[in-house]
Amino acid sequence: MTLLIHSVPGPVARWAEAARAALPEMEVRTADDAGNADEVDYVLVARAAPGELARFAGLRFIATPLAGVDGLLGDPELPDVPLVRCAAPGGAPMITEFAVLHVLRHHRQMPEFAAAQARREWIRPAQKTASERRVGFLGLGNIAGPPAAQLAAMGFRVAAWTRRARQVPGIESFHGKDGLAPFLRRSEILVNLLALTQATTGIIAADTLALLPEGAAFINLGRGQHVVDADLIAALDSGRLAAATLDVFRTEPLPADDALWRHPRITITPHAARVIRPEDVIPQLAENIRRDRAGAPLLQAVDRSAGY
Amino acid sequence: MTLLIHSVPGPVARWAEAARAALPEMEVRTADDAGNADEVDYVLVARAAPGELARFAGLRFIATPLAGVDGLLGDPELPDVPLVRCAAPGGAPMITEFAVLHVLRHHRQMPEFAAAQARREWIRPAQKTASERRVGFLGLGNIAGPPAAQLAAMGFRVAAWTRRARQVPGIESFHGKDGLAPFLRRSEILVNLLALTQATTGIIAADTLALLPEGAAFINLGRGQHVVDADLIAALDSGRLAAATLDVFRTEPLPADDALWRHPRITITPHAARVIRPEDVIPQLAENIRRDRAGAPLLQAVDRSAGY
Repeated sequence: MTLLIHSVPGPVARWAEAARAALPEMEVRTADDAGNADEVDYVLVARAAPGELARFAGLRFIATPLAGVDGLLGDPELPDVPLVRCAAPGGAPMITEFAVLHVLRHHRQMPEFAAAQARREWIRPAQKTASERRVGFLGLGNIAGPPAAQLAAMGFRVAAWTRRARQVPGIESFHGKDGLAPFLRRSEILVNLLALTQATTGIIAADTLALLPEGAAFINLGRGQHVVDADLIAALDSGRLAAATLDVFRTEPLPADDALWRHPRITITPHAARVIRPEDVIPQLAENIRRDRAGAPLLQAVDRSAGY
Repeated sequence: MTLLIHSVPGPVARWAEAARAALPEMEVRTADDAGNADEVDYVLVARAAPGELARFAGLRFIATPLAGVDGLLGDPELPDVPLVRCAAPGGAPMITEFAVLHVLRHHRQMPEFAAAQARREWIRPAQKTASERRVGFLGLGNIAGPPAAQLAAMGFRVAAWTRRARQVPGIESFHGKDGLAPFLRRSEILVNLLALTQATTGIIAADTLALLPEGAAFINLGRGQHVVDADLIAALDSGRLAAATLDVFRTEPLPADDALWRHPRITITPHAARVIRPEDVIPQLAENIRRDRAGAPLLQAVDRSAGY
């Protein structure tokens, strides 16, 4: 059996080493020495040009180390085999802590304190407690669920909006087209962790931003394409939105001349919510290979019609 | 029975109203109408000039809404009656979330990302997971215990240093004079939540800062007097310390001409870790008044010889 490590974040040698250690019976190839494409049973792929994976005719499944599969699903020639993710159980701990960090950062008015420090001014703004703060998550799946639950446990009033109805204890649920407006109206700190699909592209735009409470904060940990940048900047300039933290962008790396870098109310992080490392991904890949060989159902299979 | 609300943070009327609601049988006075000092049984005091409380000859106990009692204990004429704090069970939730926020902020390299944003530079620094990050708390009492436990639950390697030996599950313990150096040597993010006593004044100085790992971060949520400011600045300038967040200062408000405001590696917050509000304090005060009247032991009594 052959596993091809097609494309991964960071040095491929570390990934190959981890795969060989976890799957000693497997022939592990890397892209620079892929050999005969017909012999490849499993492929691990982060990014591929459209049509590039079509030549692997004997694939059992495609695995990806990424959380968002919008890039792969954009390939019209993607082989028609299962597409699986490799997230560890309990979500992605680095994204969980990053989401918690940035919600706390806006909750505790750090952008306001940073601006006051620049003026060398000792300010005493009113501060809310967690129980007075309404946090809203766009998304409540494997990635958004853990930070939403952790913030609820810290005493925040947490709600989530999902495409289909979904009940999680301690989290107020909104769903579907009709649920979006009431969800946005109550969300003082809005965190986007949606998958990028046709339905969610551009979901953060003038009409949705106008529904947020005056002085709200927005945190984008999803995809740059979820946001209409000009509308976001207009909402910040008008004061409707007090602050935004952006970790993802339509073009990455964010070009040096992009206006987002210099906006005084925007915090930029360089797609840093998670570092994807072989030690976190390979065990899940190995588990799915074992399942495939035993004829058991695969874990974390993507629903292609839903797009995530 | 008479309760005098001597000095509190924020508008005294809100405190008096909360006290009257919680203690309907009590005569509640405020400082502007204190009446006969001999009639005062209980006094709630945040700050008092030395000697100022000595005139209350019939006090049953002194209560304070503050966590740190160094100011009150600095009064040589402080009446020799029990001094009690009024923290809610489970510590101070606002301090817990503030400590977690600032540990996460340094853990996830936000000062480095902020500097890169100012240069409009997309950086990809190495990032550690929580399980690779060693956080150290100076203190592990009612205030430091909850954030230490929460960070341990998030997967951080948490240790604490205390005056006397203290074991808490999941937290590595160091104590006493001999324990300080090994504790500092392993602490990449150091959080100070100690009480200010003679023994802890100036504890953060050249000798202790030199023991921290290269590139460590320091978060001061204790008192400004714990730190020798010039030594802290020297450690930041030499690069031994990568960053510091300071919420407390030797002089508050921090004077506009203080060098701390403008240091590029220092984040200043204006003593913002906690807002002290009547709804959080008065129930604990009322409970201790009930206990005093029933002859039951008081809660949260300060050990004057220890200084906290």
